[in-house]
Amino acid sequence: MTHTVYLVGAGPGDPDLLTLRALRVLARAEVVLHDRLVDPRILQLLPLGAEVIDVGKTCGAQARQQRRINALLVAHARAGRRVVRLKGGDPFVFGRGAEEAALLRDAGLEVEVVPGLSAALAVPALAGIPLTHRELSGGFAVVTGRRAGGPGGALSALAGADTLVVLMGIEGRAGLARELLAAGRSPDEPVAFVERGATPRQRVVLADLATVAEGGVAVSSPAVMVVGAVARLAADHRIPIQGRVEARTPSTLFPEPSGL
Amino acid sequence: MTHTVYLVGAGPGDPDLLTLRALRVLARAEVVLHDRLVDPRILQLLPLGAEVIDVGKTCGAQARQQRRINALLVAHARAGRRVVRLKGGDPFVFGRGAEEAALLRDAGLEVEVVPGLSAALAVPALAGIPLTHRELSGGFAVVTGRRAGGPGGALSALAGADTLVVLMGIEGRAGLARELLAAGRSPDEPVAFVERGATPRQRVVLADLATVAEGGVAVSSPAVMVVGAVARLAADHRIPIQGRVEARTPSTLFPEPSGL
Repeated sequence: MTHTVYLVGAGPGDPDLLTLRALRVLARAEVVLHDRLVDPRILQLLPLGAEVIDVGKTCGAQARQQRRINALLVAHARAGRRVVRLKGGDPFVFGRGAEEAALLRDAGLEVEVVPGLSAALAVPALAGIPLTHRELSGGFAVVTGRRAGGPGGALSALAGADTLVVLMGIEGRAGLARELLAAGRSPDEPVAFVERGATPRQRVVLADLATVAEGGVAVSSPAVMVVGAVARLAADHRIPIQGRVEARTPSTLFPEPSGL
Repeated sequence: MTHTVYLVGAGPGDPDLLTLRALRVLARAEVVLHDRLVDPRILQLLPLGAEVIDVGKTCGAQARQQRRINALLVAHARAGRRVVRLKGGDPFVFGRGAEEAALLRDAGLEVEVVPGLSAALAVPALAGIPLTHRELSGGFAVVTGRRAGGPGGALSALAGADTLVVLMGIEGRAGLARELLAAGRSPDEPVAFVERGATPRQRVVLADLATVAEGGVAVSSPAVMVVGAVARLAADHRIPIQGRVEARTPSTLFPEPSGL
């Protein structure tokens, strides 16, 4: 008999944003290995008898911790237990999901991937920011701040995206902004940070690229960073805008068509 | 009293990939305006009494049809009915969701955005293709084939993405591939087409960029196109590979770590 390991995306936080399939798989889980990014409200949905293992990585020991995760997944699955690997967002957007799937298949196990809402798309959407827009953005790009910057980093190829989404980029935001300026983006370009997206404590900070580059924007992790004209459409500004950008109301962009 | 219109993402097809929130909103809908891309299996979930309006756009009359959609949304909502605007994938990834949200707010209505799984991420994931990968892809970009190509198109800024996802790009695939070659991508670069993703009839076609550019790949719409090294990881090839690309098994990329 071949055992199946479920590689499940937990979405951006709010349990209501789980997929039906994810909920079904979680409801029957016997062993759950989850990352630190998974919202505690989602862990509360797990069955009472399930063994829940926090495998959130601590800095400096990532390779060792990944080997431990791999060994636990394989051992529990081979023992015939129903194993769920639960990851924040989508399992195949950063976070080594692809490597874990390959390793499990190499170990003779079946893998079922259950896609989840990536914070890269869902968190901006919940804050009113569309990643594409007929007038403002013909496409978008997603990078992680941890590995994007510097020569050869993913940012260099994507710096010209109409909309650029940076995950895990808060600590390095000033450096990333300076790279985007060096790549030719305008200092006036709007930048939105959505803190604690998909939670009741969501907050949006809107700034311009030059102010971010100067280190002048106060924002705390976790937050999703969105660079581009669409950032200005953020529907939720609870604190004053930082820097020189002006929020535009939707009306100034889209006058109501006549005849309505 | 302010009325709320729900702008809901239906995900890539399979009703199991709806979010819990989407299901709750659909279960209470009184009027549903849906696109052609929404899977019929999802429409079967709507309450018996709901008025279901197909507002799928036909070519050549897009502007007029959009005015009709806008007018219907506003009129039904102002009449106090619970209105759902249901879009394939995510409501804020292409497809004018942002414009509709702005128009509704300008008309004095509340808008609740319910994010959905975008086909751009979920369809490749279900076919075993991760958009990011620690060794192969540090970021990804998403464009639509309808508007991406040519001078000033979104493709020109994103042609260098480690992983490039093209939605609605099947008809123009040869031209898009030629543009990517002209932008410096290798003729050997793997390209995966995932036809009818998230349905029981999903099929993956794997090719190389040169063969796509020569018009030598048979594939039918709807399909998601993925360009980049990760395309080779597609887990599901039901037909022979087209062109000169070789599928690699996960094992050749990731030898099993010792100690397992």
